[in-house]
Amino acid sequence: MGLIVQKFGGTSVADAERIHRAARRAIAAKGAGNQVAVVVSAMGDTTDELIDLAKQVCSFGGCDKVPPKREMDQLLVTGEQVTIALIAMAIHAQGHEAISFTGGQIGLVTDNAFSKARIQSINKQRIFQELDQGKIVIVAGFQGVTPEGDVTTLGRGGSNATLVALGATLGADVCENYTDVDGIYTADPRLVPGARKIEKISYDEMLELSGLGASVLQTRAVEFAKKYNVKIHVRNSQNDHEGTWIVAETPHMEHIVVSGAALKKDLIRVSIKGVPDRPGIAAKIFGDIASANIVVDDIIQTVMDDNTANISFTVEHGDLHDIKPAVERIVKELGATTQATYQADLAKVSVVGVGMRTHTGVAQRMFKALADNKVNIQNISTSEIKISCIIAKEQAVKALQVVHDAFELEKAK
Amino acid sequence: MGLIVQKFGGTSVADAERIHRAARRAIAAKGAGNQVAVVVSAMGDTTDELIDLAKQVCSFGGCDKVPPKREMDQLLVTGEQVTIALIAMAIHAQGHEAISFTGGQIGLVTDNAFSKARIQSINKQRIFQELDQGKIVIVAGFQGVTPEGDVTTLGRGGSNATLVALGATLGADVCENYTDVDGIYTADPRLVPGARKIEKISYDEMLELSGLGASVLQTRAVEFAKKYNVKIHVRNSQNDHEGTWIVAETPHMEHIVVSGAALKKDLIRVSIKGVPDRPGIAAKIFGDIASANIVVDDIIQTVMDDNTANISFTVEHGDLHDIKPAVERIVKELGATTQATYQADLAKVSVVGVGMRTHTGVAQRMFKALADNKVNIQNISTSEIKISCIIAKEQAVKALQVVHDAFELEKAK
Repeated sequence: MGLIVQKFGGTSVADAERIHRAARRAIAAKGAGNQVAVVVSAMGDTTDELIDLAKQVCSFGGCDKVPPKREMDQLLVTGEQVTIALIAMAIHAQGHEAISFTGGQIGLVTDNAFSKARIQSINKQRIFQELDQGKIVIVAGFQGVTPEGDVTTLGRGGSNATLVALGATLGADVCENYTDVDGIYTADPRLVPGARKIEKISYDEMLELSGLGASVLQTRAVEFAKKYNVKIHVRNSQNDHEGTWIVAETPHMEHIVVSGAALKKDLIRVSIKGVPDRPGIAAKIFGDIASANIVVDDIIQTVMDDNTANISFTVEHGDLHDIKPAVERIVKELGATTQATYQADLAKVSVVGVGMRTHTGVAQRMFKALADNKVNIQNISTSEIKISCIIAKEQAVKALQVVHDAFELEKAK
Repeated sequence: MGLIVQKFGGTSVADAERIHRAARRAIAAKGAGNQVAVVVSAMGDTTDELIDLAKQVCSFGGCDKVPPKREMDQLLVTGEQVTIALIAMAIHAQGHEAISFTGGQIGLVTDNAFSKARIQSINKQRIFQELDQGKIVIVAGFQGVTPEGDVTTLGRGGSNATLVALGATLGADVCENYTDVDGIYTADPRLVPGARKIEKISYDEMLELSGLGASVLQTRAVEFAKKYNVKIHVRNSQNDHEGTWIVAETPHMEHIVVSGAALKKDLIRVSIKGVPDRPGIAAKIFGDIASANIVVDDIIQTVMDDNTANISFTVEHGDLHDIKPAVERIVKELGATTQATYQADLAKVSVVGVGMRTHTGVAQRMFKALADNKVNIQNISTSEIKISCIIAKEQAVKALQVVHDAFELEKAK
């Protein structure tokens, strides 16, 4: 007997019909002799509607306040809580037993970084108690509680973090991630019509793709899956097609130079000029920024003739509310010569593949393709298995198509 | 410095504007030098919408299942959780500090009678910790948790139970119950146009009125208020009018023979015929019914010539799903001669007043008024301070108007 953890995203539980379809999948997995736990997201646009509601309240009467993050999390977790109850009811209506749990109810404890909390532990006892009684266990994704009992959310796509953490904790044979697409594609098929479904991809490649904007699975979830060697099967909840398996790297994978391309469409570059060039200053700056729970990437430091340094980095647009006060505080501390500027409307196009480790000329091929198509590269960053270029946001989609073509990603490997 | 607990019902928090109005009231009470806790219901029709969602899921594809009560409670509590977060945001947007708590987060522990749980205790420590820091504390009404951490709801109007329990636990000077009416009326003003607002009413009168269908405050909340001598001020959230004070009885109140009239519009009478007439049988029957968490009233037992008894009682229509299986089980145990029948479409009209204790002829005046208006009385029950008549549902509103006129309740006393 195996143990399967299934996860249904928002579009897969958007109405009564889809909820019943998800229920049927869980029941089928149980009927095949498995113990089954199910992680669910909020229905359809529920989370966005709740965010709108908060905005209405916070901007009422012309005031313009950012809602306290603790209260925002208190609000948002209700979306998943509605779904767990409805899925349990649907399973019950189909004649089977189920029991629903919020994050708090299964002791899914996180740190207290409201809006982007990290999972610290899950109490598996209560879950096994119910699984062993033959029940399908339904767990609210995206949420946890602090040790003090405050409700937290796990950040964008946090339900996937819940899926993988639960899979690892319960020792699941597979984590099935049901979504509204057939799997992971060589690029976002809404942007690149020729994009192709990938059959199998390594954790590291998926990590890079997730970090670079492929929205199906988030970095944190993949990191966790890699660490605990949890197999993830990304599938479409509307059909029975085989999806994309995310697994440990195999030697065969090295033959594929580039597995996929990704795009981050809305970035801001923060440049801090006139930073005193002394040891530890970068550590201090990024330490302060990290304490504000802001995720930065593509850091560049240049030392100038006058013994000051320019430090620049990119952040996602959504973080601007948080980043600006944090940066201004840092700039003030650094002294009179330092100043910060913010450049918006940037994008990042990237290619990823474990084959890069053993193949040469990949970067050159990418730069040439972009140049041939008049896409100006403002910044380059690389890792062992990826190459990223910062470009103007208005050229983003064209750039993605260009690199996809350059590496012939539409062809099966 | 005083301590005020305010409660805002669903219509008083139905949109961003009303949420801000509620926030302003809480801030004003704090500005007047009080510590303030606020209990809130779900916004507008949220609870009904959630019930509809559950019905959609449970009746999908032609199946017709009753949702498990645990899951129904898991679903319904999200309504209040949305409101607490939004009220806290509104107070924050108005420049003041607030913190929201679910029932579970303030350790509001109940028994495990899902859908009509009873409050056992509240952990006041966390609340005082926040009040002492100058924060307005927002608490989700209508909900609690079992000692095992399962979410429960407190039954219809359960937010008032939360209000009074919180008032008692914190030792509040007053519990302000904000609603969409100006106070308690001599009868439901939607049914009796001449109904008049009552200035002051005793716990006992309010208890009878609540138990008899006056929907502003539920029996359980008033019982609790009486037990702990918590003053309740029922007010309209849309204006600053003085409302109705619910307080301990004063000698002056005895001058008023009838304080108010009430109507329960949708009752079912359960009649069990051929019950063996031996001691303890009624205790067993109603014990079994109580274990099913069904509230009955107006019990009549008649012993027949053949040494059997007929036992009949009324229950609210909504309980039929629960009552039928429970009654059928009892009937089966009692043996072959016993059988149960169910008569629907009944109503109960009642008058209440502490003055009845010292005045005579009240019952006669009520019966005559109904008879003069061709309302047939099917059953009568009385207490020291109330008289109730069971009548046909179709004559309910007319009967209420008739008794209101008979006791001249439209005139100020």
